[in-house]
Amino acid sequence: MSMLPLPLEQLAEQLRLLPGVGKKTALKYAFRVLELSDEQAQNLLATIAEVRSNIVSCVICHHISESDLCSICANTSRDDSQICVVEDARDVLAFERAGSFKGLYHVLGGVISPMDGIGPDKLNISSLLGRLDEVSEIIVATNPTVEGEATAMYLTKLLAPRGITVTRLAYGLPAGSDLEYADEVTLARAIEGRRSL
Amino acid sequence: MSMLPLPLEQLAEQLRLLPGVGKKTALKYAFRVLELSDEQAQNLLATIAEVRSNIVSCVICHHISESDLCSICANTSRDDSQICVVEDARDVLAFERAGSFKGLYHVLGGVISPMDGIGPDKLNISSLLGRLDEVSEIIVATNPTVEGEATAMYLTKLLAPRGITVTRLAYGLPAGSDLEYADEVTLARAIEGRRSL
Repeated sequence: MSMLPLPLEQLAEQLRLLPGVGKKTALKYAFRVLELSDEQAQNLLATIAEVRSNIVSCVICHHISESDLCSICANTSRDDSQICVVEDARDVLAFERAGSFKGLYHVLGGVISPMDGIGPDKLNISSLLGRLDEVSEIIVATNPTVEGEATAMYLTKLLAPRGITVTRLAYGLPAGSDLEYADEVTLARAIEGRRSL
Repeated sequence: MSMLPLPLEQLAEQLRLLPGVGKKTALKYAFRVLELSDEQAQNLLATIAEVRSNIVSCVICHHISESDLCSICANTSRDDSQICVVEDARDVLAFERAGSFKGLYHVLGGVISPMDGIGPDKLNISSLLGRLDEVSEIIVATNPTVEGEATAMYLTKLLAPRGITVTRLAYGLPAGSDLEYADEVTLARAIEGRRSL
């Protein structure tokens, strides 16, 4: 038998939906929610509702947006001959922070992962195929994980026959890192991808 | 300029109210909230509202409760000659999990901490003084921190003149710990508090 009031226990259970949150952390969060001022709690409820109702997927690239078209797809000064394919909206934000890519994006909404029952049909791939008319290059920017690589391979096989240049992000040492602490795979790839100065 | 939709940014900002949650984690949580199913999101909103409206403070001991009297104060089989004074409701739950204490509790709602502007007047101390009629022993179970100790001292000075036995939790080695890794203060206190076998 638990000694927690039922609603508090339910809240803790639901807070475990947050990424990386276990039982103890969820309970800590639930207590904090209980201790919020009325104003803070009202604001939190209103903002969650607002996020849920006002943020949608861009109809073209599936990036998060407050209107049908996201600000990137709506921006006519972007280079529409390049599409950078990413796993999720956070990746778009990361590229935009870096600032050097001026083309468009396409958010897959995940990666192919048979273990989790995610096949190509669950990703935003057919909508990508519908965007190829003006496109000369697709940069596949899925993560350098097993699933990310498999998804990149799948897309390459799908896109290459259509005469589109498919590229992948460079592998190598992250900026500011230390050779000594780089793992073997990263180091091997950094040598393999070496460039002349 | 941020590239995040405003409501998402506001949600991330508000999620930083959760204990130990920084900017990056808050953003990760905000994205997860966006990705919840409609049912999950509705449940979460409903449960937060329920926790906020249905969980109150026990009118006697200030422990969390779903009614005026908490289940411990309402339980007539508990020993009302002993009150264990704790900092917050989580401490009550910890004692109840341990299960050996059969008396009543009193939740202070914090500790005396001049640095944070928390004086004795901000804690549930006057209501404790109103509960002393049947009480023979007060166990001060504030945390073994500087503030917890200062609060324990303050309570002792207040209660001792009223002829009540005031005790403090034992200091020593935690069960299952390793002498080698115990800090000096813990070890010194373990020797000081040694008992004959």
